[in-house]
Amino acid sequence: MDKQDWSAKKVWMEVVPEEEQDLYRQSGFGERQPFGICPALIVIDVTLAFTGSKSQSVADAIREYPTACGEVAWDSLPRIARLLKLFRDRSWPIVFTRNDSIDQAFAGSATKRVRSKPSPPSGQEFPAEIAPLENEWVLEKAKASCFFATPLSSYLQVQKVDTLVVCGVSTSGCVRASVVDACSHGYTTYLVDDCCFDRSHFAHCANLFDISAKYASVVSLAELEALCLSHSPG
Amino acid sequence: MDKQDWSAKKVWMEVVPEEEQDLYRQSGFGERQPFGICPALIVIDVTLAFTGSKSQSVADAIREYPTACGEVAWDSLPRIARLLKLFRDRSWPIVFTRNDSIDQAFAGSATKRVRSKPSPPSGQEFPAEIAPLENEWVLEKAKASCFFATPLSSYLQVQKVDTLVVCGVSTSGCVRASVVDACSHGYTTYLVDDCCFDRSHFAHCANLFDISAKYASVVSLAELEALCLSHSPG
Amino acid sequence: MDKQDWSAKKVWMEVVPEEEQDLYRQSGFGERQPFGICPALIVIDVTLAFTGSKSQSVADAIREYPTACGEVAWDSLPRIARLLKLFRDRSWPIVFTRNDSIDQAFAGSATKRVRSKPSPPSGQEFPAEIAPLENEWVLEKAKASCFFATPLSSYLQVQKVDTLVVCGVSTSGCVRASVVDACSHGYTTYLVDDCCFDRSHFAHCANLFDISAKYASVVSLAELEALCLSHSPG
Amino acid sequence: MDKQDWSAKKVWMEVVPEEEQDLYRQSGFGERQPFGICPALIVIDVTLAFTGSKSQSVADAIREYPTACGEVAWDSLPRIARLLKLFRDRSWPIVFTRNDSIDQAFAGSATKRVRSKPSPPSGQEFPAEIAPLENEWVLEKAKASCFFATPLSSYLQVQKVDTLVVCGVSTSGCVRASVVDACSHGYTTYLVDDCCFDRSHFAHCANLFDISAKYASVVSLAELEALCLSHSPG
Repeated sequence: MDKQDWSAKKVWMEVVPEEEQDLYRQSGFGERQPFGICPALIVIDVTLAFTGSKSQSVADAIREYPTACGEVAWDSLPRIARLLKLFRDRSWPIVFTRNDSIDQAFAGSATKRVRSKPSPPSGQEFPAEIAPLENEWVLEKAKASCFFATPLSSYLQVQKVDTLVVCGVSTSGCVRASVVDACSHGYTTYLVDDCCFDRSHFAHCANLFDISAKYASVVSLAELEALCLSHSPG
Repeated sequence: MDKQDWSAKKVWMEVVPEEEQDLYRQSGFGERQPFGICPALIVIDVTLAFTGSKSQSVADAIREYPTACGEVAWDSLPRIARLLKLFRDRSWPIVFTRNDSIDQAFAGSATKRVRSKPSPPSGQEFPAEIAPLENEWVLEKAKASCFFATPLSSYLQVQKVDTLVVCGVSTSGCVRASVVDACSHGYTTYLVDDCCFDRSHFAHCANLFDISAKYASVVSLAELEALCLSHSPG
Repeated sequence: MDKQDWSAKKVWMEVVPEEEQDLYRQSGFGERQPFGICPALIVIDVTLAFTGSKSQSVADAIREYPTACGEVAWDSLPRIARLLKLFRDRSWPIVFTRNDSIDQAFAGSATKRVRSKPSPPSGQEFPAEIAPLENEWVLEKAKASCFFATPLSSYLQVQKVDTLVVCGVSTSGCVRASVVDACSHGYTTYLVDDCCFDRSHFAHCANLFDISAKYASVVSLAELEALCLSHSPG
Repeated sequence: MDKQDWSAKKVWMEVVPEEEQDLYRQSGFGERQPFGICPALIVIDVTLAFTGSKSQSVADAIREYPTACGEVAWDSLPRIARLLKLFRDRSWPIVFTRNDSIDQAFAGSATKRVRSKPSPPSGQEFPAEIAPLENEWVLEKAKASCFFATPLSSYLQVQKVDTLVVCGVSTSGCVRASVVDACSHGYTTYLVDDCCFDRSHFAHCANLFDISAKYASVVSLAELEALCLSHSPG
């Protein structure tokens, strides 16, 4: 499990001043957790509302859907598809999340956003590249974290899952909130950095730094594939 | 309530590229929520473990307590004391949080940190400047968010609180996690930026940006004081 | 508020031995809580799966839907309709719950019941007598309590609700579980005994006794109507 | 695992009318769940406040502690001690719960009980017969369920527990609430009927009936011992 080069400098670390990275290391942050024996994949909110209907600049994309993230979404879709195949090939559990527009109309949405009149729910479909199969769970949630006010942890308990692999959107919003909750719930958590995206490159990098320091092991898709190969005969 | 200059450029915004700030505004993030009629103050983890026993460089401070934040902690203590006075003068509810070292020994600590042997709990005392009074609640928590696995929301319901004012440490850790949960629980939330601190200036600023965009109204102590003055005859 | 005769012996008390009732009184159980100023009505699971499609013996009803409760369901529907009118006339919040069959297929159902093959979801419609209006929230839940893994408490917080009035089915199952959670969440809770029903008369009575002793004020529809009349000009 | 005589009529069934028991069987309630491979024992609230300081009538006991249960408590202590030994011999996780009097002073107690002045916390010690060992977790909780607002589920996740064995007090209060939550969280749950007690014999029996029908497998200590012997080489 430890053969891949974890010490490789991640691109997103570049936004963080070198001396502050040093302080974190001295304080003991950023430790790596061993990958468990029963992993599940959580795909956070990769719906048209966040990808837009096609690859285009984020400035154009937000005219279609206010929460769309632009080209970074479409760049990551083929990698998320590879991640899905990795789990499907091993019959490991997969959970897709998306917004529950009915619950949000009553209990409030995932952010503090106040809208004078609720817009009709839209963009709740999944891009074909990463669409859930018939028998896969699409878990609807009202808030940022996939654990908040959902039965996700009951499902993971029934499935005896011990490790979560998280990807999706946005790194600084629902992904961050879900990873913090995953850690609080006691799961070993892996975040796949090149299978996450965000409308802000800065926020994407800054959140990966926090997550890596405190809540999850942040790896690339290639690193995760290597972990999974060493995990099972494949 | 709207007299203070909210458009004032916050110092922490400087870490975020201007064009990404523009995108957030176009997407409709960063809206302000009206301050409610029954506010409570949550002081997150301002114990010696995070402040150290005195003002010193963070490099020195972490030799005393690995999680200490250095001078920024001590710079903010007088402001947190003013914030406490503001709430005490109005008899508004105040909750202090700190780590529950017994629960953490069994259920795991607030971050993914793995320790070969659990260190004895230490630094759980409060600096004199901001110490809780006899009748104020010191809520012990095991995880990052003050809502996670604690009866905080039951207390706030009984007290009919509608607005949370949050301060403390670390901005990128327990403060961020608590503010995200406060938003998910349906509270109007205000974060007082100069009453929060973090071992990393970069992480402090980057998290204030995220929080301001999505989860809470981020104000200075001066702005909050103005809000409270306009709120009650005082 | 205290004019109605609370000392009236409730029918369901008859199942409990007199001397055990005495012990509860000596121990200080069964205290009454004042009705609040912002009540909400929670109608638990009053769908065809629990009422059946018409009034018939429970032995016949369970051949149509295994969870149907028979005549007691249909006896209570006109009273539940009156309770709904009471809240609609005052524009007080109303929440209907029902089973979320998708979440239950993954996270398990509301009881320990194990089925070799999941039956198709059925009976999720509401009887016409008590059907939700267009703008009323139908909250889907996977487990017994309406609070468990749902955003109900976020909604109640946003609406500033301080008192819950609960009715529905079954008294010994989802109603009991919801009332216990309502108490834990800090709500003053009222249960309307003749607007609740259960396939077992014994379990109905025994659970009303427990609920009355520990978690909620148990009143009749007539008592609740009197409380509401004294509450608002109506 | 299935060798013991599960069809044995339980004493507590006698309070329930025979024809209502028939209806439950016809509806498919009361199914048995297989015992898992990683069990944990939860000992609910077996402190002096609920046992009293010695075996005496419940009428006398409640003069010492209002929540004391009398002789039934002391009758069950030797059996709870045997249950503890069963788990200690196998190094299986054990969690003791008791009331958190600080949190209860702020967030409210486990029932709707309103006290004009909070009594000083008392009776929080454990009877010597069943006292926790140095390294066993005493989990303090504010509300009825051991899961509500506590990090219990995080601990069980970290320990990979799949089956809960529950005992303690009171059957109709904190035990019932904990078992319902255990089921909702996805755990296979066993309740040991002769290691639970309640101030009311009626409520004890009526709640065992509900729990057995819907939430847990209710077994005697002897049945559980047989299950555990067949489970491990012992």
